[in-house]
Formats: sequence, structure tokens, C-alpha cells
Amino acid sequence: MLVCLVLLLVTLCAQGGSGEDAQRPGHVSVVIVGGTGDLAKKYLWQGFFQLYINHVSSGNTFSFYAGGLSPPEKANPVFFEILKAVTCPKDVSQERCALLKEQFLRLSAYRQLKTLEEYQDLSKHIELQLRQEGLTEAGRLFYLSVPAFAYADIAEKINSTCRPTSGVWLRVVLEKPFGHDFRSAQVLATQLGGSLTDEEMYRIDHYLGKQVVAKILPFRTENKKFLDPIWNKHHIERVEIVLKETLDVKGRIPFYDQYGVIRDVLQNHLTEVMTLLTMKLPVNLSSSKEVLQNKLQIFSSLLPIGKNQAVIGQYQAYKAQVQQELNMTKDHISITPTFAAVLAHIDEARYEGVPILLISGKMLSERVGYARILFKNDLFCLENNNNVHCKPKQIVFHFGHGSLQYPAILVSKNLFKPDLKDSGWKEVTDHKDISVLGLPISDYYVHTPADQREAYSELISHIFAGRKDTFISTENLLASWGMWTPLLNSISRSFPRIYPGGVDNGDLLDVLLKGKEISYNSEVVMISNNPMAGMSANEFHVMQGKFRGSEMVSAWAEGLVEKLAADLQEAAEEAVREGGVFHLALSGGSSPLALFNRLSMHHFSFPWRDTHVWMVDERCVPITELESNFRNLHDHLLQHVRIPYYNIHPMPVHLSQRLCVEEDGGAVQYEKDIRKLVNGSSFHFVLLGVGYDAHTASLFPGSKIDPHGESLVALTESPTKPHQRMSLTYSAINQARRVALLVMGKNKHEMITQLSRVKDNPEKWPVTGVKPSDGTLVWYLDYDALLG
Amino acid sequence: MLVCLVLLLVTLCAQGGSGEDAQRPGHVSVVIVGGTGDLAKKYLWQGFFQLYINHVSSGNTFSFYAGGLSPPEKANPVFFEILKAVTCPKDVSQERCALLKEQFLRLSAYRQLKTLEEYQDLSKHIELQLRQEGLTEAGRLFYLSVPAFAYADIAEKINSTCRPTSGVWLRVVLEKPFGHDFRSAQVLATQLGGSLTDEEMYRIDHYLGKQVVAKILPFRTENKKFLDPIWNKHHIERVEIVLKETLDVKGRIPFYDQYGVIRDVLQNHLTEVMTLLTMKLPVNLSSSKEVLQNKLQIFSSLLPIGKNQAVIGQYQAYKAQVQQELNMTKDHISITPTFAAVLAHIDEARYEGVPILLISGKMLSERVGYARILFKNDLFCLENNNNVHCKPKQIVFHFGHGSLQYPAILVSKNLFKPDLKDSGWKEVTDHKDISVLGLPISDYYVHTPADQREAYSELISHIFAGRKDTFISTENLLASWGMWTPLLNSISRSFPRIYPGGVDNGDLLDVLLKGKEISYNSEVVMISNNPMAGMSANEFHVMQGKFRGSEMVSAWAEGLVEKLAADLQEAAEEAVREGGVFHLALSGGSSPLALFNRLSMHHFSFPWRDTHVWMVDERCVPITELESNFRNLHDHLLQHVRIPYYNIHPMPVHLSQRLCVEEDGGAVQYEKDIRKLVNGSSFHFVLLGVGYDAHTASLFPGSKIDPHGESLVALTESPTKPHQRMSLTYSAINQARRVALLVMGKNKHEMITQLSRVKDNPEKWPVTGVKPSDGTLVWYLDYDALLG
Repeated sequence: MLVCLVLLLVTLCAQGGSGEDAQRPGHVSVVIVGGTGDLAKKYLWQGFFQLYINHVSSGNTFSFYAGGLSPPEKANPVFFEILKAVTCPKDVSQERCALLKEQFLRLSAYRQLKTLEEYQDLSKHIELQLRQEGLTEAGRLFYLSVPAFAYADIAEKINSTCRPTSGVWLRVVLEKPFGHDFRSAQVLATQLGGSLTDEEMYRIDHYLGKQVVAKILPFRTENKKFLDPIWNKHHIERVEIVLKETLDVKGRIPFYDQYGVIRDVLQNHLTEVMTLLTMKLPVNLSSSKEVLQNKLQIFSSLLPIGKNQAVIGQYQAYKAQVQQELNMTKDHISITPTFAAVLAHIDEARYEGVPILLISGKMLSERVGYARILFKNDLFCLENNNNVHCKPKQIVFHFGHGSLQYPAILVSKNLFKPDLKDSGWKEVTDHKDISVLGLPISDYYVHTPADQREAYSELISHIFAGRKDTFISTENLLASWGMWTPLLNSISRSFPRIYPGGVDNGDLLDVLLKGKEISYNSEVVMISNNPMAGMSANEFHVMQGKFRGSEMVSAWAEGLVEKLAADLQEAAEEAVREGGVFHLALSGGSSPLALFNRLSMHHFSFPWRDTHVWMVDERCVPITELESNFRNLHDHLLQHVRIPYYNIHPMPVHLSQRLCVEEDGGAVQYEKDIRKLVNGSSFHFVLLGVGYDAHTASLFPGSKIDPHGESLVALTESPTKPHQRMSLTYSAINQARRVALLVMGKNKHEMITQLSRVKDNPEKWPVTGVKPSDGTLVWYLDYDALLG
Repeated sequence: MLVCLVLLLVTLCAQGGSGEDAQRPGHVSVVIVGGTGDLAKKYLWQGFFQLYINHVSSGNTFSFYAGGLSPPEKANPVFFEILKAVTCPKDVSQERCALLKEQFLRLSAYRQLKTLEEYQDLSKHIELQLRQEGLTEAGRLFYLSVPAFAYADIAEKINSTCRPTSGVWLRVVLEKPFGHDFRSAQVLATQLGGSLTDEEMYRIDHYLGKQVVAKILPFRTENKKFLDPIWNKHHIERVEIVLKETLDVKGRIPFYDQYGVIRDVLQNHLTEVMTLLTMKLPVNLSSSKEVLQNKLQIFSSLLPIGKNQAVIGQYQAYKAQVQQELNMTKDHISITPTFAAVLAHIDEARYEGVPILLISGKMLSERVGYARILFKNDLFCLENNNNVHCKPKQIVFHFGHGSLQYPAILVSKNLFKPDLKDSGWKEVTDHKDISVLGLPISDYYVHTPADQREAYSELISHIFAGRKDTFISTENLLASWGMWTPLLNSISRSFPRIYPGGVDNGDLLDVLLKGKEISYNSEVVMISNNPMAGMSANEFHVMQGKFRGSEMVSAWAEGLVEKLAADLQEAAEEAVREGGVFHLALSGGSSPLALFNRLSMHHFSFPWRDTHVWMVDERCVPITELESNFRNLHDHLLQHVRIPYYNIHPMPVHLSQRLCVEEDGGAVQYEKDIRKLVNGSSFHFVLLGVGYDAHTASLFPGSKIDPHGESLVALTESPTKPHQRMSLTYSAINQARRVALLVMGKNKHEMITQLSRVKDNPEKWPVTGVKPSDGTLVWYLDYDALLG
């Protein structure tokens, strides 16, 4: 079965030369575990045959094994059917092709791989043949084309039985899914990490093998001089990464219903394309380390994606398919999305505010995959003519299908004539009369691969060459799950919009971008089990009343924050109108975050230029630390608005390189600043939160702060870490014109219930010491906190 | 000649009721100085006839005077020809019209108004008639339809002879031009201010009388609920304010050649429209005070407009017309622009980054005036269909002409159905098959005035009603000139692009927006007397050489700044790559401004997050003062980039509420901060300038700073105010890895020449003390400084 190839010339493989691992010629054993399955049948054996053809004259020798759970007598016929179907590239003569196929068949065999012993046997078999044939071993390649739950077990078996001797490589290829969220991906990575090194693992995302996707970074590099000036927020209107499919998932429901379109397509393929489009260009394109680093930087710069950054849909027939394939009753409803449109933003100067849309769905009216960079309309055409330069400017990475039908990179002619240094690409000038994304094809420079190669063949050649840059490293994988898991959690109970499928979808799935949020453009009455679904915060009125004798505003969280932000702006405008300045003291903690977000996203006319921001309290940590209240305020509000540097007043908790040492006089200094800058030391607005123990600011139960003392700022002690705090005192708070107490969340309900009954007792219930002497106090309680 | 109208009902005029000055019925004398001129003939008498018709039954009586320089016998026939040509509105019967015209004729007379005596006589005449007819005087209205140079003289004559008794109003109406730049407008305003109060002056901008322009603020108010969420940078793609004309200026050259299109159209009409579109909505639309205040706020928020924010053109035939009308030889070239496209930006959170285009020109292919608010494409249409909601969203204030031919407000149907509460407006639903700005008319909601009224008639009725909100106050005028004068100065020697006129213009005048700059989209070889015209900084190579034994880079200013910014970024990236942080010390002064601008506009990938900014020197003033170096740095750089608050290190010149007092230890504190945060106190990059006296940082000639001393920060004395300074010392500077000395401008040439010859002598030439011990020193000298 094993044929020794006597070679006249032993050369290093040129194709693999760009890999980091210089290839040592020798014998390579390829094992496809799950070698008679669908994927193997459709792509893998063809890919390995291609590899064999490419390397048959390179000094390497091969043997190929299909591993499976079935006994050989059952699997062999299936396997040989598969092998017989492999084809040669067009440039190989029929005669030579027949010879190559025959050799390939003779090098290939099926083996049952179920038990540890069977893996042991495989390894012994390989070693025996190496000895018998007098071959030097180059490496062992295991391709796991099996369900993900089997990975850990197989990896363990490979590790304990099939490791080659040192100096010989082991590469284990894995197919998605790699987990279904951050945690499970981490568990899987840890399990695999027990058996394999990161270097040995090749996680496949077949999108990275698509020629157009693989060309994104080279294209960006080769056309750097054109792209550098326009590849930024001033020029890019938006980025769209779209994979539309016409098929449904009938027959695959048991798998699909567990995953849905976000895990199936967005988390991997579309995310990878997004990072390739936006990452900083690596100096060395084939350095997998540099590529990875730059990709990770994109992940770490992404703004969080939550339910306001996504819309989901499900094709109408899905419900019945689920009921059938999962044997469910007619009552059963699956909320697994088969369509999703997600809006991402990269919080870097270059891309600030540029919407990145990731969209995929089943049963749409067209099959097409593309990434489009649409540039801003930066031209004013005086005569409104039809000149090409007045039309949209865009670059389209067309992965395939659609009206174009072939993979290509399209650059609208009003942008630039691209330079594709790669001889593997050719320009297309002879066009059908079609339109691609709003422009006639003749308005584009069109480049397509000279030879269209299948993604799996490409990736198999990369695995062989040890080129890790086109595979998903553990860090990359976890970063991607880190991006998607919060969204998956937040929509885990959301009802997708039902769409009929195909052309009947009409404009039902069109999406609207609203700042950093996305929604369906058309409104639809939702019919679902959940009476709240489809209702927005606006549909609930804001309730006004009394709490502990003071004003109270209550609403659902979103409405409450809107109201508080509006009240805050009103107060700011009034203060600026009256005295030209607004003094605002803000608290730390998590409740104000939604308020900060609301202020920076919706309150464009907030008079920040005339606003001074003070701290209500601070933890005694350097203000650069993540747990600093100031840092929190800085990252979530101050960075996003135009407030002058000198209007910002962090508490001086870090004087003389020490934290909150009494004799450094930080509290005294802050008090002096307040007395000097704030008229009559009376803040216009003080925003406070309330803790579970009813503490407010950093005034905790049992503290000895005199509610009637004179000092405005004090050092205090917290029962939780970090213990040392600096805080405004009751005196400072109670001199304010307005004090807002913001309390949100079910877990504050019990405390609010208690507070509604107790008498003032600041030592026990610090918040009860808040009693503005001349100003007003308003409680902002969300329904969760108020009603539980 | 004067007819007393016996009235059955004396009612207060309803039309004038919205004015601030409640109207007291009585006799009104109207005097049009220049009453037989073109404007009077074309618009004014018709406007006053309309006023007469409106008020004939209101309890007011009138007399009308045409004043002029000609003797009556010459002027009378002309005048009566004009009067005979006035027409009645459609709703007035022919019979009544004849009666009204006859009465109007009998109320009107021509008077020679040249000398002071003639004005005296006019006044006596008015008073005599008042007495004779037993009339109560309501007011006197002088409409100065004469060249602007005559204003001051006539105003003086009116003031000294024609002032009515107290309680009777005097209103003097002025037509543009009101000066030709800020200074001349100020002089004119001062001169007029000697004769008239601001209250008495009515400066006309007839655009404010156009019904669509006058409707902008009411429209914004009536549709507030729709507009509020979208009237901001997140939704507006751009604003275009366009007045295109097909005519040339033949016959008007003696006037026009002094002014050009910017002074003629942009400074007034288009600027007014811009303020109406962008100003904060006044609570009371008819409060001229509030309208003015909100307008002024826009002016004060405008980013400066310089030559990079404008392109200019001149129609081809203009040159010959100038030669003919000004009796010039064939060599004479005028560079007066007849076309201009200007890009404005309002530096407020709401409009940050929204381009506002103001465009006007003669001899274009179409006559049309409009303001368009184009909204961003915030929709992703999954099926790319032709649904109206996938088309451009826009609001068009269509002033007139164009394909539409009538004034209208158009709101694309994918935005909202506007609410026009004003009964004077009607919806148009019966359309011709035309397209307006890219959309078929049927895709708009179209509203037009029920009765089309001429702008002058409108404004004359406002003058009569005392409605000052539709006139240009002195403050408004000066603010507008303040906006335009720097541009006018900076292009005073620029050659306009020559365009053929009409449809032949093709795409020659299409403009491209590049960030905050504008340019023609197509390149044209300029033929002009100026050999430098049309050359850009890139066409001159950057020169490298030696200066005082150190590296030197030289180029034209723009290229030099580009090179320095690139070098700075390279240093920053290298430092961040190596140690994760970049410590940059920056100088004050004006030279670095272009660098700051370049960094914030073009260097998107500058690693600001990891950059610490330190000050090279500071003036001992509070950092909030405009003359503070930090304030300068803050306003021109730090505000525009995303640098964390805690990476910014202003010098502590203002401790304990005192400025640079030795015992407050500010210098010591800054030195401590440097020693703690900056590795080995060695800045990665120090940017220095050099003063005329060769001082650098705040190290001045004669100062006693030891070039080899140990301290890093010192208090120093400047020969110019403010005298007290804080500065890095030679020791701090010379420990840096890189020091850049930036020197630009012809006025530094002499100093540079001297420096090229002298030996090191820091006490005399402080900059010669800059000698990095381990680092590199590079001189960045522009050609002006180097070559003079």
C-alpha cells in the first residue's frame, strides 16, 4: 500500500516557503478522523489529493488514513467511493491524472479508530512502515472531522499514543464549533491544552481559506498608498460584512437549534473578516504572531455588543422543522435565530463612529457573501450629473455567488486603480451587464483569482506548510467568544422576528442604525408568549410620587435613566443661563453607567463646556486604576464628551505618591477647591447612589461623620475593599441645590422597602442623612427597586 | 396732495401684531432716498404700495417721498412712470385697484435730497402737513437705496434735521454692502452709530424676506418632535446652502469687481441661512434679542475658515468684461471670484464634524437657490430594493427657481410628514414629473406658501411692524464679517479657477471634502502670472542636511510639518513597542499649532492612549487663561484626540491659589512627577521652538540656568510679559532621546542666519545649550526661516 517515490530532485517545497516552520522533507502521515463523513467526502479528501499532487515531486512521501468508528468491512466501500470521486486540476493531463489517482488510492487506507488500542495500533503501524521503507518521518497530521464533543477524548488518545519522536511535527486540525460561549470555549481549550500544545492545534475557519478573504491583508498592503489616507472615520461611511443564504437548515436542526446563526456564522466567519478589514496592518503578513497581536487589538477595542446592537429573526418554517426533527409538540417554540444583523463599533481613533454591520441569515432571497467598505460621499457635484465620480465610492470583497457568481475584489473607479502585485490575480474587463451593490460592474475595477481554488484545499496546503496565520489560535478564539458571549446571554430569551423567507421577506429585515444602536426599520406587532416582548420603555409612563417625604420618580430602568438625564440637562442649562457655570458632583458605582451612556449618546446640547465635574467620593487607589471611581467616570463619560481638562476635578487621593494619608491634606485641598470655585460651596447637582447597606457617597453605617459638621470632604472607612475612601460629607451634600438619589435593580428592593419604613438615622442608614437644607431631593427608583 | 382718509373703524393692524413695538396708529412718512433707482423701481415702490394697501384701513395715514439728487423736473417723469407700474394683488378688484393706485399716486411726491437744507425742508414740510391736516405722527421711515459710501453722510443729515419728536419712531433702512471686511464694517457701524441708534437701523438682507427662509425657524419649531432626535452629527451627513445663477455680472463690474461672490452672496445671504439652520431654537421666535443671541453663538462656535476651506472660480468672460468696463489694458487680470465653495464646521457637540457647504456662483448651468439637509444613510436594505425608505433622506428648503420653479419646503417621505401649523402654507400633491436633488418629487412631502409674496414686500411690512428679528443687527453683521474676513485676506492673492460658464463647466467646479478641507475634485493645470500658483507642498522635496553640526530637515512649511508629524509618530510607535509608553514634552508658542492640527487631523493611529504629554515650559498664569501654554495645547490638540486625562501633565504653576511661588514647590513637584513616571527622566521626544532672541523653552538670554545643573525644572524670568515662567532645564532637555527644534517663518531668518555662525554660548544664545547627551537633535527649519 505504501509506495516509495524515488525522486530525481529533492527540492524544498516552494509553495510552503512562506510558512514559519521551514519544511523538512520526509514522510507525512495524514489521518482524517471522521474520514468517511460529509465534510471529508465533500472537501477534505479532494484537498489532500490536491496536496499530494502538489508535493509528489517535492521530496515528501505520504500515507493517508481515514479513521472512523465503523469496522473496516462496513466503511471500506464508502471510503473507496469517496476516493474515486477526487479530481485533478485542469492543467493535469488525463493520463497523469489517472496515474496520480491510482497512487493516491494505494497510499490511502481506512482504519477503525475508536479505542485507545486502535490509536496505539495506528501509531505502531506508522512506525513499522517508516522502518520498513527506510523513511525519515517529517510529521503527522490528524484532521478531526468529528463532532466537537469528541475532540478532547481524541486529542487525549493522540497525545498518549500517536506522538511522533522529537523533531517530527504533530498537527491536529479541528473544525468549528469550538464551544458555544466563552466559558465552554475556555473549558474546551483547557481540555485540549492538556493533550496538545497551541502550536500543534490548527483550528479551521474555512472562510480564511477563501481566496478573497485570504487576499484582504495583502490587498490592504499592496494598496497602502491609496488606502492609508481614506481608511479611517473621516472617509469610511460604514463596513458591511454579509453572508446571505437561500437555504434553510432542514435536516440539521438537532445541531442548528443548539447554535443559531450568531454562533454558526457571525462568531467565526464574519468576525474573522471584520478583524482582517480593520486590524492594523502587520509589517510581516505571514507572521502569525503579529497577525494575531493585531487581531487581538481589534477585539480589545470593540465597544460592548448588547441587545441594542443586534436584531434577530427566524424563518417561519423553522418552528415546524424543529417540532418535527426534535419530536416536539405543536406548543414548542424555539427562539434560535436564523437571521441576525449586528452593529459593532471599534473604539479607536481611526474607526470611531464607523458602523460595522455583520449580517447573516438563512432563507433570504439571494445567496451571496461579501464585505463592503462604503466610503462617505465627500463630493459635491455642482451639476448633479451622472458622472462616475459622483456615484458611491466603495470596495467590495466579493466572496462568491450573488449576481457576480465568482470571487472578486471590486474597487469603484472613482476611488483608485488597485495594484494587485500577486500574479495569482487577474483583472476582469469583459463584463456581463450586471450591477453589484448599486453600481454597474463597469464602474468597478474587478480582479479575480487566476485559478479558483477551494478553501479547504488552500487551508490543507497551509497546514502542511505550517502557516498558522490562517488558523484560529486559542487567544483569537477566546477573544471572539468574549465579543459575542454578552450578546448571546442578553438575547437568550428574546423572541426573533418571524420572516416568511425568500422574496416574501420584502423590507421586513431591513435594519436601521441609530447612533450606536440597531433596530428593525419597520415595526411589526409581535405575537409571542411573552406579553412584554416588543414593548419599549416609552410605553410605560414615568410615575411621580413621594418617597420618604421627598419627590420620587419611578419608571422602568431605561425610562428612568432618560428622565434623570433630561432633568440633569435642564438643571445644567438653568445654571449656565443664570451664572454661566454648572457644578456637578457625580458618584461612582455601576448604576450611573447607563446615565453616562445616555448623556454622551443623546444629549448633544448638554453644556459641557461650562460644566465642572466633581467627585462625590473616591476609593483610595491611583486614579489610573480600574477600580477608581474617577477612572470609571473617565472611561464612560468624560472621554466621550467635550469637557475642558481644567473643569474636571478628581479627588486628590494620591498626593506625595501616597494614598489618602491624612497629613498630605488631600481632603482639605479638595475642600479648598470647592470653596474657591463653587459658589457658596453649593453644588448645582449631586448625584448619589445607595448601597445594599443604605450607604451613600462613601458614608457607611457606623461612621462618625457629623451630619451637621462643617467640613465638606472627609476620609472615611468602607466595610469592603478598598477600605479607605474620600467622600463629600453630609454638609457638602446638603448644601446642594439638587440632590438625586438613583437606585436601580431588583436586588435593591429589600433595602428600598426597609428605607420606606425607617426614621432618619444616618449612623444606621447613612442615606437618611441626606436632607438638603435649601435644595431639593429627588429619589429616582426603577420599578425593579421599587416594586421588586 | 395729501388726502385725509376718513375711517369708519379704527383698528389695530393685525398683521403687525407680532412685532415687539406695539403699533400706534397715526401718520407715517416714508422716504426712499434713491427713490428713482433700480432697486426702488424693481421692488421698493411695489413693496410700499403693498404696505399701503394693507394698512389703508388700519387707522394709519401715509405720505411717500422719493428722494434723489436730480432736480424734480428731471426726476418727476421717471418717478411717475415707476408709480404707474405698481400692481395690486390678485384678490383686489380692478375697480378698487384703480382707486388705490390713484390714492397712492396722490400721496407720493419726488423731492430733491442733496443738501442739508433740502433735508431740513423735507422735515419742515412733513411737520407743516401734520399740523395742517391735524394728524398725529406715528413715524418716519427712511429707506436708503443709495451706494453704501453715502450712508454715513445721509444718516448724519437725517439725524440733524429729520428726527421726529419723542414718542414718534424713526427707522432708517440700509441695503448691503455693509462694508467689505470686518474693519470697514466696524468703521461704518461706528459712523452710523454717531447718527442713529441700533434700534433705529434696519439693515436689509432680502433673503430673510423670502418666505421659505423666513419659515426655517418656525418649521424647525413646529417639527421639533421629529427633528430633535435627528438634528445632530449622528444623523446629518451634511448641509448644503447653494445659490446658483446663470447670469453674468456684465454692466455691474465697477461694483462687482470690488466685491466678488463671497462678499456679495456668501457673507450675507448664505451665512444668514446657515445660522437659521443651525442656531439653537429660540423659545420665542419673534424675540429679536433671543434670535440674535442664538445666532451669535453659532458664529462664536465656527471653526476658522481659511484658504483650505474654500475654492474659488471666475467665469472666463469676466476678464474681458473687466478690461472693458474698467478701461483696462489686455494685460489686466482681475482675481475677483465669481464662484466660491466654502466649507464651514460648527465646533459644538451637536454638529461636530458635520460639513456645511456654502456655494454660489455666476454663469452656472442652472438658476436655483436651496438649502439641503442631507441625512446619513442609516439603513441597511437587505434586499437592495427600490423602496423609498432605502433612498436618500433629506429636507430641502427650496428658495426658488430650479426644476421646481416655486418656493417650497420638501421633506423626503422616508423622514417624516411635516406639520406646518401656519395656515399660510399649503401642501402640494399634484406634481409635475420632475426630480429635486436626486429624488422624484413624489418621494417628498411638499409645502409651499399659499400666497407667494415678494421678499421686499415682506420686509417692508416687517419694518413697518418694527419686527427687528428679520434684520441684520450690528453685532450680527460684525460676527459675520469676523467669520469671512480671515478667508478674504488669505485668498486676496489667490488665482481663481477659470470656468467657461453654463453647461460647459462640466465637472470643473465639483468639489471634494477632505476632512475639514475642501478642494476642487478635478486637477487642472493653472495658467497664471504666478509661477507658484497651483503648486502644492508635496511638489517640493523635503531637504535633509546639517545645521550647527546636527541633523536638519527643511521644506516649505506644510511639508515640514508633515515630516515632523510623521517623525513624531514613528518615535511614538517605537517607544510604545519597546516600553508600552511614550513620554512627549511639548512647547508653547504658535509654531507648533500647525503640527497639532496635523496630528489631530491626519494621524489616526497615533498611540495617544499610551502617550504622556508633558509641558516644556509654562507661563505663570492659571491654566484656564488663554495665554497659558497648556490652554493653547489643550484647545488645539488635547481636545481633539483621545488621550486619557491622567496622561496629561500640566505644569503646577498655580498651587495654593498663587502663581509660581517658590515655596509652593511647583517646580519641585513637577520634577518629582517626571522622575517617578518618566523612565530615567529621559523624555522620548522633546519639541522646542526658538524665539527671535534665540531663547528656547523658557530659557532666556542672560538667565542663570546652569547647563549642567541637576534640577530638571526651574522657575525663570522672561523679558516679555508674563515675566514669570516655569521651564524644563537644559538637563531635562539634554537627557531626552530626541529633541526637535522647530523654526518657521521669514521673521526667524535673521536669527537662524546668526545661529548658523555663532559658537555655543547658552547665556547669550540659549538654544545653543541644547545638546542631548545620548539622544539626537534635529532642526526642523522651513524654507522661509532657512532661506529668508
